[in-house]
Amino acid sequence: MTVRGPVIEAQFIETMVLLTINHQSLIATKANRIVRAAQNRAVMEFGSRRAQGYDGAVYGARAAYIAGCNGTACTLADRAFGVPALGTMAHSWVQMFPSELEAFRAYARTYPDQCTLLVDTYNVLKSGVPNAIKVFREEVVPRGFRPKGIRIDSGDITYLSREARRMLDEAGFEDCRIVASNALDEYIIRDLLIQGAQVDLFGVGERLITSRSEPVFGGVYKLSAIEEEGRIIPKIKLSENVGKITNPGFKQVWRLYDRNSHKALADLITLFDEEIDENKPLEIFDPEYTWKRKTLTDFYARRLLVPIFEKGRCVYESPRLEAIRDYCRAQMGTLWDAILRFENPHKYYVDLSQNLWDVKADLLKEYSVY
Amino acid sequence: MTVRGPVIEAQFIETMVLLTINHQSLIATKANRIVRAAQNRAVMEFGSRRAQGYDGAVYGARAAYIAGCNGTACTLADRAFGVPALGTMAHSWVQMFPSELEAFRAYARTYPDQCTLLVDTYNVLKSGVPNAIKVFREEVVPRGFRPKGIRIDSGDITYLSREARRMLDEAGFEDCRIVASNALDEYIIRDLLIQGAQVDLFGVGERLITSRSEPVFGGVYKLSAIEEEGRIIPKIKLSENVGKITNPGFKQVWRLYDRNSHKALADLITLFDEEIDENKPLEIFDPEYTWKRKTLTDFYARRLLVPIFEKGRCVYESPRLEAIRDYCRAQMGTLWDAILRFENPHKYYVDLSQNLWDVKADLLKEYSVY
Repeated sequence: MTVRGPVIEAQFIETMVLLTINHQSLIATKANRIVRAAQNRAVMEFGSRRAQGYDGAVYGARAAYIAGCNGTACTLADRAFGVPALGTMAHSWVQMFPSELEAFRAYARTYPDQCTLLVDTYNVLKSGVPNAIKVFREEVVPRGFRPKGIRIDSGDITYLSREARRMLDEAGFEDCRIVASNALDEYIIRDLLIQGAQVDLFGVGERLITSRSEPVFGGVYKLSAIEEEGRIIPKIKLSENVGKITNPGFKQVWRLYDRNSHKALADLITLFDEEIDENKPLEIFDPEYTWKRKTLTDFYARRLLVPIFEKGRCVYESPRLEAIRDYCRAQMGTLWDAILRFENPHKYYVDLSQNLWDVKADLLKEYSVY
Repeated sequence: MTVRGPVIEAQFIETMVLLTINHQSLIATKANRIVRAAQNRAVMEFGSRRAQGYDGAVYGARAAYIAGCNGTACTLADRAFGVPALGTMAHSWVQMFPSELEAFRAYARTYPDQCTLLVDTYNVLKSGVPNAIKVFREEVVPRGFRPKGIRIDSGDITYLSREARRMLDEAGFEDCRIVASNALDEYIIRDLLIQGAQVDLFGVGERLITSRSEPVFGGVYKLSAIEEEGRIIPKIKLSENVGKITNPGFKQVWRLYDRNSHKALADLITLFDEEIDENKPLEIFDPEYTWKRKTLTDFYARRLLVPIFEKGRCVYESPRLEAIRDYCRAQMGTLWDAILRFENPHKYYVDLSQNLWDVKADLLKEYSVY
């Protein structure tokens, strides 16, 4: 993102801009990892009660939906943004009745068309699933519906879901879906599926809504140039920590795609008015290990920065939520699997153009007193 | 916390109650660990830009203050709750000027009485600290003030702070404080101090405001009893995961203190109408490993639950922020060091009374089909 304006105004929005982009990028990234681990099975966002504040829950649910979740148990995110609200029964429903069987019956009579029963209040295989099958037969099928599903929220999901699947199938409910929840994330979901868990939908709570494996998204907002008498003067901030050295100047960001596979090859940061000639080979290089170089051919380039505000006026039409979600899915499709790997992923390159690097090198020399 | 009311009403508030208590308890816990690591040095909350949403920043800053931080860079938390707003200059201030020296001069002339200079924009020891000393001498002291401090935001804090301390002392600014920031947490602060870092104040950002080492606080809200015709019927939820089995009934929570040291010995959960006789030995036992037993003598007991709402009316006068902060400090003082250890702390016991355990055991037997 580039913000160009009077310094006081640009400074005023710093914290809110960073907080918004950092938070929602964080949750979208985590949610997308979980959605990918689930391999075409639906993922529902269930984390509101463990979110870091009200906005954490509501905007987090929106980000999770954009990243590929099917919906959320946060009904406020439905009201505010149209994120589909989803959910199943609660343990308290089961506990309120004298017995699990009576609780299931009352629920099935109320929602025969949407009957998903929570089967782990007492004992999944000895009580929950048998009672669910009984109620599906006695209350759902006679009303002309098929049972929707059962949900398992504790215990060993692999074992319980496989046994439950077998019991449901034997009862003729092959179409009854199994929902699993309980401190899930991309790693646990991956392992459950490798072990043959029979889960059709995942409800994912605390580890998604807080991005537990890495709850910090480290975006920064740095002064990179000032304008004096119409002239842009690039500025730098140095650091012993190489990653904290800023890229000076007024810049553009490009994504370079392979012309055949349409996969993203790298991002390239250039000076704002640079052009990229797609018909010539382009040499790119690592901005830290500058001796690591690569020449691209058969590529095309797309500018990633689009104007949002111009002279204080919003000139951008915000896409609908579904369009943002589609864009996310399409963009994820342009990344190589190696980059999407959960552990030790291949690095996605974000390089600097030679022109930008020259500006940076000059400033490094000018300000450096190493 | 105990909520007693019509089930629909009690259910409606579930998510917001949990989210609020989980989030703020999480941040207060993390902040208190960091404050303790700093050993009487001030800790400032600097994390807004990395918070998980607006509420994450504002309520997080409040929780951090309650837990012992001295203030926050989140000015909205000052406006909303009176958390003291604190801060130093930004890198962008330094970058906006033709040179660091000119930036420092302009700042010192504007805030001669509150002059803390950020010395790591270019090079801490070769540029930042020498320029700061020069400006303290030329702009601050002649105006009748003493320099407030310098801030180091990158690089090796131990080495840089020790060298900076030496340079400041040699220049006669022994009272000039050194502020350090840069992805700090309780572990890094502890290690910095062990290695002799000369830091007087810590600015702690992303790892505090997201509780990075554990961003999930797992409080739950469970149905534990229903009332039928004036009779309270305790309810339980079972689970293969022992920690997920609920404690049935309408309950009270007590904290038991040693009469001599005034240290907290354990918390004890009892049925609501139970009394504790402080003059008799009290046998307590682990609610999971019930054979682990201990007899307490010379103790006193304090009820932890106080009425907040009665018949829909708030009957509780919310203490002032400073009083909550004082209460937190006093309560932390009642915990043994072993329990406060960052790694492998000794377990603080939360036990059940024999009466409550009997109710639970009956329900375990009644519902269990293991």
